[in-house]
Amino acid sequence: MSGGAPAIELVAIGDELLLGDRVDTNSVWLARRLAAEGIRVARRATVGDDADAISDAVRDALYRTGAVLCTGGLGPTSDDLTRPAVARVFGRALHVDEDVVSHIRARFASLGREMPDSNRVQAQVPEGAIVLPNAWGTAPALALEDEAGRCAVLLPGVPREMERLVEAHVLPYLRRRWPGAAWPVLHRTIRTTGISESLLADRVAELADSFRPLTLAFLPGYAGVDLRLTSWGTLDREEAGRRLDEAEAALRERLEGYVYGTDDADLATVVGHALKRRGQTLALAESCTGGLIAKRITDAAGASTFFLGGIIAYANGCKQSLLGVRAETLAAHGAVSEETAREMAEGARRVIGADFAVAVTGIAGPGGGSPEKPVGTVWICVAGPDRTEARRVRLPGDREEVRERGAQAALALLWRHLGEEERA
Amino acid sequence: MSGGAPAIELVAIGDELLLGDRVDTNSVWLARRLAAEGIRVARRATVGDDADAISDAVRDALYRTGAVLCTGGLGPTSDDLTRPAVARVFGRALHVDEDVVSHIRARFASLGREMPDSNRVQAQVPEGAIVLPNAWGTAPALALEDEAGRCAVLLPGVPREMERLVEAHVLPYLRRRWPGAAWPVLHRTIRTTGISESLLADRVAELADSFRPLTLAFLPGYAGVDLRLTSWGTLDREEAGRRLDEAEAALRERLEGYVYGTDDADLATVVGHALKRRGQTLALAESCTGGLIAKRITDAAGASTFFLGGIIAYANGCKQSLLGVRAETLAAHGAVSEETAREMAEGARRVIGADFAVAVTGIAGPGGGSPEKPVGTVWICVAGPDRTEARRVRLPGDREEVRERGAQAALALLWRHLGEEERA
Repeated sequence: MSGGAPAIELVAIGDELLLGDRVDTNSVWLARRLAAEGIRVARRATVGDDADAISDAVRDALYRTGAVLCTGGLGPTSDDLTRPAVARVFGRALHVDEDVVSHIRARFASLGREMPDSNRVQAQVPEGAIVLPNAWGTAPALALEDEAGRCAVLLPGVPREMERLVEAHVLPYLRRRWPGAAWPVLHRTIRTTGISESLLADRVAELADSFRPLTLAFLPGYAGVDLRLTSWGTLDREEAGRRLDEAEAALRERLEGYVYGTDDADLATVVGHALKRRGQTLALAESCTGGLIAKRITDAAGASTFFLGGIIAYANGCKQSLLGVRAETLAAHGAVSEETAREMAEGARRVIGADFAVAVTGIAGPGGGSPEKPVGTVWICVAGPDRTEARRVRLPGDREEVRERGAQAALALLWRHLGEEERA
Repeated sequence: MSGGAPAIELVAIGDELLLGDRVDTNSVWLARRLAAEGIRVARRATVGDDADAISDAVRDALYRTGAVLCTGGLGPTSDDLTRPAVARVFGRALHVDEDVVSHIRARFASLGREMPDSNRVQAQVPEGAIVLPNAWGTAPALALEDEAGRCAVLLPGVPREMERLVEAHVLPYLRRRWPGAAWPVLHRTIRTTGISESLLADRVAELADSFRPLTLAFLPGYAGVDLRLTSWGTLDREEAGRRLDEAEAALRERLEGYVYGTDDADLATVVGHALKRRGQTLALAESCTGGLIAKRITDAAGASTFFLGGIIAYANGCKQSLLGVRAETLAAHGAVSEETAREMAEGARRVIGADFAVAVTGIAGPGGGSPEKPVGTVWICVAGPDRTEARRVRLPGDREEVRERGAQAALALLWRHLGEEERA
């Protein structure tokens, strides 16, 4: 880590964090986000809902590093102590800010409710603090500065509110504070599906050296193996970006047919974009994945432009009555079979009237396996205007893993199916 | 937090933790494991691979709390600085322990390799330290004590090695240190749905005092607000259990109709158990939740005993063709309306042949809202053998939140519906 970068400390507040009851994802998100801005996190502390401990931790951080970001303890209840504890460190009195009260009241009103009295405490602001308005919740973020230029920023602990406040208000505030921060830690993730970690490593091993000073890491997960490239703050933003682009291009060339996107790309979204571009529609027939693929497809706004609907045929009766799978097929081959998967996909395509349908039927476990069809056996199928293709996969892991991997395998089959059509 | 229980601080060491590159799961695991032993984690700190920062953090913890557990920085490379940094705090010299060298050499030999010279540094032991042998890796854990009885335990950062060393050696060491620690930190979470944090606080505010020494915390989330009761180690296990039972009973009485379970209970599972017990079946008709409820229902093994299937009627055409919603209903009232929700639920119940059906139709956003039906407007409906009931909810938040909260509201409606039937 370079010593020249602006530095800040993080203080996470909440008994639940000391009990191991909740994982502190906020500090991880903040550390990454700040690193990408060229701001070094010098230290992190976690304290309970205890005013003295909060004051001590904030005071230590201020005198050691000069800047601190606190998360949590800004709620309306008696265990929310961050505001008074930090006001004390700065020797400031708290007063109720009527603008903030109005904001909180309006937020309740928009939900058709009265603001309870207990929420007034969230409008308390230390004298001289900057109020960073929270459009996504009740408690605003607060920034305090002392005469020596040390600063503390207080953020609510709800991850979504915290993240949005940071993007909208806290990063702009810190950029004004440190206008020169230009040596960021930057990552780029190349996402693959359908290739194992060891095969990937063999294919790209000798490229890694040529990427220096970028590093390359392999991160296997349910969705496939991600390749992460990192510039560790030894290059400026422009040069790091250029090197990352070059390395990405080299990896994509070496891994053609396996890379479906970068960074936060999701295969469900990638497939959705392809269908939208083609003006075609999708239907689903899910058994063992039980709605998981539909959920992923509809997580993205705008799914209604290509996704018509799906049938979760969990019971065999539903496979017959809703999808038209034949009783003889089920009797002769079983629910987890190529024949059933094909009839499910073709049935969904027909009854929903879509261009493409994806079907999944398998054994997610823990029960239901047999020597011929062990837990993890999943049939996936894509039915399209031109052809139907089915594939069997054997997936490792427990129920959750089999379902997640099965959903990803089905989406990957559709992705390749669409790609082959486009090349044809 | 009470001062009665033995207390310890955690210091996690590693640049990767400050970069947000790795989630610190060790501290979470340790916090839980120690709390259940009756040892309170008073504070956590995370520092980089920097000898001064490590020394400072360990010294602060020793003087504040008297005991500290460090994880990480015991590897063989130059950025592993925990041993010398902590030896310095205790004013002890490091010497190479030949028993540890033999252990490391034997470990390499068992893998058919020579011990690299760099690994000798892992055999360095501060004068007077207790060596806790590592059967699962190279670096042993180390325990140091000063004349005043303060102690520091150093553990490797690899989670599997760390966990095994704690179970095998560190907990026995701490039990000898604090023989009276039959005073565990125990908590119980009471899970509610359908009531806001501030209303909850108003209802139970005056109970909280009567629970002392138990504390009560409010933890809001998509699934509702959790109430967490904690006994902070001032009561023995038996007395704490009795008090937790009493407090739970008092909360349940005050919050009748809102408490669906305790600890890890999930509303989808609770509803599933009720249906299984009654020998009845469930169908779903999802629009804006797009498969999310079905996914939650089928997350649990054994869902097939009560869940028959579902229809994701995302497009209006699917609502008509698959669920039998009438074109006139959609034209007159729109897809997000009581009438459509009722026809969806009754349609799903009919075509799937289930005892109960749950339907959801709403505007998850970001687009699609209007002044009369803003984003977050969701109709939920339960159709059963005796009656159909529908309810409109206005849900705050973005697309993901509206979907998660909408799914939970729909499950809550079914849960109350079943409860009322049982009381009737």
